Amino acid sequence: MTVLGVDIGGTKIAAGVVADNAEVLRTVTVPTRASEGYEVSIGQVYKAVEECLDGDVAAIGICSPGPLNPKTGVVLHTPNLPWRNVPLAELVGQRFHLPCKVDNDANAAGLAEALFGAARGYSSVFYVTLSTGIGTGIVLDRKIYHGKNGFAAEGGHVTVDYRSPLVCNCGNIGCIEAYSSGTAIEKRFGVRAEELARGVEAGDPTALQRLDEICLALGAWLGSMISLLDPDVIVIGGGVARIGDPLFERLRRITPTRTINPFAADTPIVPAALGDNVGILGAAALVLA
Amino acid sequence: MTVLGVDIGGTKIAAGVVADNAEVLRTVTVPTRASEGYEVSIGQVYKAVEECLDGDVAAIGICSPGPLNPKTGVVLHTPNLPWRNVPLAELVGQRFHLPCKVDNDANAAGLAEALFGAARGYSSVFYVTLSTGIGTGIVLDRKIYHGKNGFAAEGGHVTVDYRSPLVCNCGNIGCIEAYSSGTAIEKRFGVRAEELARGVEAGDPTALQRLDEICLALGAWLGSMISLLDPDVIVIGGGVARIGDPLFERLRRITPTRTINPFAADTPIVPAALGDNVGILGAAALVLA
Repeated sequence: MTVLGVDIGGTKIAAGVVADNAEVLRTVTVPTRASEGYEVSIGQVYKAVEECLDGDVAAIGICSPGPLNPKTGVVLHTPNLPWRNVPLAELVGQRFHLPCKVDNDANAAGLAEALFGAARGYSSVFYVTLSTGIGTGIVLDRKIYHGKNGFAAEGGHVTVDYRSPLVCNCGNIGCIEAYSSGTAIEKRFGVRAEELARGVEAGDPTALQRLDEICLALGAWLGSMISLLDPDVIVIGGGVARIGDPLFERLRRITPTRTINPFAADTPIVPAALGDNVGILGAAALVLA
Repeated sequence: MTVLGVDIGGTKIAAGVVADNAEVLRTVTVPTRASEGYEVSIGQVYKAVEECLDGDVAAIGICSPGPLNPKTGVVLHTPNLPWRNVPLAELVGQRFHLPCKVDNDANAAGLAEALFGAARGYSSVFYVTLSTGIGTGIVLDRKIYHGKNGFAAEGGHVTVDYRSPLVCNCGNIGCIEAYSSGTAIEKRFGVRAEELARGVEAGDPTALQRLDEICLALGAWLGSMISLLDPDVIVIGGGVARIGDPLFERLRRITPTRTINPFAADTPIVPAALGDNVGILGAAALVLA
């Protein structure tokens, strides 16, 4: 059996046929054409699917920008696309006569890491993507935890300082995303995450001090996540995680000191394993799990 | 069918026979005699069970001070009792030839509220006891969420200010327990929670301002819990919750403003319903669920 994974981004849509062993058999990429309106951009989604589809594909999974309701497959609205209350799962499913599921990228990536990647074999997974924003996914027994409204696992918007001067992208204050995301690094330090990574690699003291600051907030936040969720494993992906060992070493050191859980030091904090294909694999995982 | 619920406290042990409709048929209370050592205090647990037991009792549930591992029924140690690595579920189960489960009071109370109380009929429940400390329980589909090590749902030790000057009972800094628990009220404001409640009831401006401060932290924290867990309902019990409407009104107003979840205002925040029997009912729920 194969499935189709479709990863919708603000600038491009990537689709891929994925075997149930997570092998990506072929991929297609088309521009999103978001600025040309709803009809054009939804047409690009159909186009990506059509170009990949063959008779063996049993289902379609889609990662979409959100907020969206994964239970109904409706995308409520999204800053990156001219979409509002789009019943994406229904539209794509009916058009291609296949089962279709939609979820956000962090949930899908978390599921893919749980099924095929760094969290394979673990039953409870807290997945983090440290990127422009901070997305998270909670996977329990190979299923994404969605909560009542399908809006659970927005861990990037957990407050780490309830009287913070820092305003988050979401409009709230004190979210971890306002402290340690790519956007936060730019806002707080005036450098891009890649520059920070280069500085850290070169041993630049300012870069290292900034990394310490980011990791202090992240470690306290991960400690809270362990106090609350006691997961089997924490997996961290996303562009900011490319800082690599210096980031992971700090998080592994700080996190167990910021939780009441006496076994926290035994909870692995590991890099994501799926790399650039995580979008397509995440989307595919939605209909493989 | 009836079960036995045993609630072990630092000063007394309450046991009760509970029917599967949550009716408490009879209760017994014995002193814990904690200061007299392990043998005496574990003997008091046996005594409480013996005095309640009859031929109809099918299982025994126990709430114990912790930390403890609910998966194995072992109490690791506890500040209130001279116990260390006590296999409580095994000891009681073997002695009385009955299935026995052990959990902490917040998990058990959350389960009891989900089965019989304020969260009856909801599938995901975030339970809070605002007491000397702040305990929480996560109940999903009528089961306590325990996590990898059985240490999940320690929501009272989620950080609300990661650089806080406030030291928590757990030794960490910035936990919500350090801001809004009974102990925190005493430490921060020099009054007991009951006095604060009386001041709030009398409309005393200082008391109201203190309540505002407590609720600002609690609301941000509950907002984070909704961002992460998106529960069907939030149930709040414990002595500090006896402040009642002035507390709940503030939490219902603040919480939806401190989360990214667009449906948070629809998440009920309600008082616990089970009152003084929650200890016995919680313990009983462990073997009724």
